Amino acid sequence: MTDQPINPFDMTCPLPLLHHATVQMAHGGGGRLMRNLIEGLLLPQFGSSSYEAGKSAPPHDSAVLQAGDQRLAFTTDTFVVSPLFFPGGDIGKLAVYGTANDLAMAGAIPRWLSCALILEEGTPIDTLRRIIASMQQAATEVGVQIVTGDTKVVDRGKGDAVFINTAGVGIVPPGIDVSPARVRPGDRILVSGDLGRHGIAIMSVREGLEFEGALASDCASLAGLVDELTALGGDLHCLRDLTRGGLASALIEIAEHARVGIDLDEAKIPVEPQVAGACELMGLDPLYVANEGRLIAIVPATAASAALQIMQSHPAANRPSVIGTVTSNHAGSVELRNSMGSGRLLDLLSGEQMPRIC
Amino acid sequence: MTDQPINPFDMTCPLPLLHHATVQMAHGGGGRLMRNLIEGLLLPQFGSSSYEAGKSAPPHDSAVLQAGDQRLAFTTDTFVVSPLFFPGGDIGKLAVYGTANDLAMAGAIPRWLSCALILEEGTPIDTLRRIIASMQQAATEVGVQIVTGDTKVVDRGKGDAVFINTAGVGIVPPGIDVSPARVRPGDRILVSGDLGRHGIAIMSVREGLEFEGALASDCASLAGLVDELTALGGDLHCLRDLTRGGLASALIEIAEHARVGIDLDEAKIPVEPQVAGACELMGLDPLYVANEGRLIAIVPATAASAALQIMQSHPAANRPSVIGTVTSNHAGSVELRNSMGSGRLLDLLSGEQMPRIC
Repeated sequence: MTDQPINPFDMTCPLPLLHHATVQMAHGGGGRLMRNLIEGLLLPQFGSSSYEAGKSAPPHDSAVLQAGDQRLAFTTDTFVVSPLFFPGGDIGKLAVYGTANDLAMAGAIPRWLSCALILEEGTPIDTLRRIIASMQQAATEVGVQIVTGDTKVVDRGKGDAVFINTAGVGIVPPGIDVSPARVRPGDRILVSGDLGRHGIAIMSVREGLEFEGALASDCASLAGLVDELTALGGDLHCLRDLTRGGLASALIEIAEHARVGIDLDEAKIPVEPQVAGACELMGLDPLYVANEGRLIAIVPATAASAALQIMQSHPAANRPSVIGTVTSNHAGSVELRNSMGSGRLLDLLSGEQMPRIC
Repeated sequence: MTDQPINPFDMTCPLPLLHHATVQMAHGGGGRLMRNLIEGLLLPQFGSSSYEAGKSAPPHDSAVLQAGDQRLAFTTDTFVVSPLFFPGGDIGKLAVYGTANDLAMAGAIPRWLSCALILEEGTPIDTLRRIIASMQQAATEVGVQIVTGDTKVVDRGKGDAVFINTAGVGIVPPGIDVSPARVRPGDRILVSGDLGRHGIAIMSVREGLEFEGALASDCASLAGLVDELTALGGDLHCLRDLTRGGLASALIEIAEHARVGIDLDEAKIPVEPQVAGACELMGLDPLYVANEGRLIAIVPATAASAALQIMQSHPAANRPSVIGTVTSNHAGSVELRNSMGSGRLLDLLSGEQMPRIC
């Protein structure tokens, strides 16, 4: 046991046992340490049978469950973002969009959400009022009902104003089967828009940075876009939203889970100059920065232009792009190729570049 | 706006607007202030339509939702109990039993749970390991699968070791319709066992009190007992577990929701002498102390002895008893009658006698 961070680029031990005696910030960061916690501690207890039952790859997806004649998607997400309010959104919007988006990533139509609050004693009621109003506004927009809830209060200094857990239940339409297990060599990878806005918006508030023009979070519902993408039917192989860990972590997990390689074309990955500049300033890699309104879709090459057209005409997308190809080479890894044709393998970071991003 | 606690016995304003400028511990206590928060702030936003859709009374019940040919129960509960380990249980067991019990209180068979963790940086991994093992043991016992999860980490001093949210989905069998709205004058009220063990077990650890003999929490699954009670079919009018706020708060909520009166026979309410003694010592009323393995069932008089027999032969019950009658008198209130025949009205406390009990 050690409290030294493990080397995030240590490929000799892709799923090490738990190396730490205590919980580290990186255990919640969407990278290797979080996976380590999930695969080293949670899954061995909760059972890979449940994991298989859900046909889902940890840690972001919904479980898909048969109930009578319906396939349900079921997911949970807790929001501990700091600050509570940021350019383009707030914790309430995130809590509704985030969980609805996780349901949508299973191809489901989001239907019902729960809202469980952990409030710190002394939090202004008006803060709570603003957050709850924002949640309801987001729920109306997504078309979900918040049907059940719970409220707990903890003593001052045992929480941080407001934490919100939302769990969600959705219905998977017939003919839709969205899963990393369906990804095949030759498939194309599309991203719905430019990357890195959410993480940079949060960091700009924390660091007191100001950028020219507005740099707002991309925080948005993806349910409407996914609803249109389901017109692709069985050609919709895999979806993933690009939250903690960003594009790179999502693709690495898919490559490992589906035992395929992924080749990315760096020049095709949309990043706004403002975001790229901020990343350079803060020493961040935009491929690993969290988004809250972007997804990747993986479809057969024959369906790529149809998928791109759907994205191009949907307001939740912005500069969508075909960014890569699934290959049978270098299975389990993601290679980023630059305009000179040379490539480098991407790896999971140990944690998140920015803690408490969502 | 004031930060003075309101008088919990103020009957002139049963549902006051929010009187406080900041969140108080009592807002999470299962009493009048929590209801105030729910009915004054959450329901006006989330909509009484959702609340009606769920046919459930706030704050404890599951929502009941139609999905294809199935009726689903859906609920959420966050656990912030302190200490994490106590005689008879721990936060992990509570998190599984508590949410499964909430599903069972809608007459549902619990099927799937989520597990969302908020971990404080620096928490020993071994503490987490014990809690997760305990959750899985409880899930196996209840017969639910933990199918999806989420892990967040917050900085030291922004959490308290481990908080757990579990949401749950269950299936309501055909012919079962369990709701406060079905309670009728003449119905009998049964309690499944003696009261107050959970609250007193927690307080004994906090206060460093030692009692003769073991005084353990009643923390247990009620799903098996409810499964047997569903043999009563349509005669099973209402169920409620007796968590935050205890027996008194649960019955007051039902009386208000169903617009009926409830007469309780004090002599029939089972409280162990050890619990009664501890309550006296700590100035607590056992009728308001939290339980984690006790329920009330409300059934027609003709079904009361069958319900009692089912309880008497089930290991989750202990000294079950018919404790009262629903009446068309004093609608909306609960009267406790002592052996001398005189009665007093019970009222919701402003909060919980003991914070962070679950």
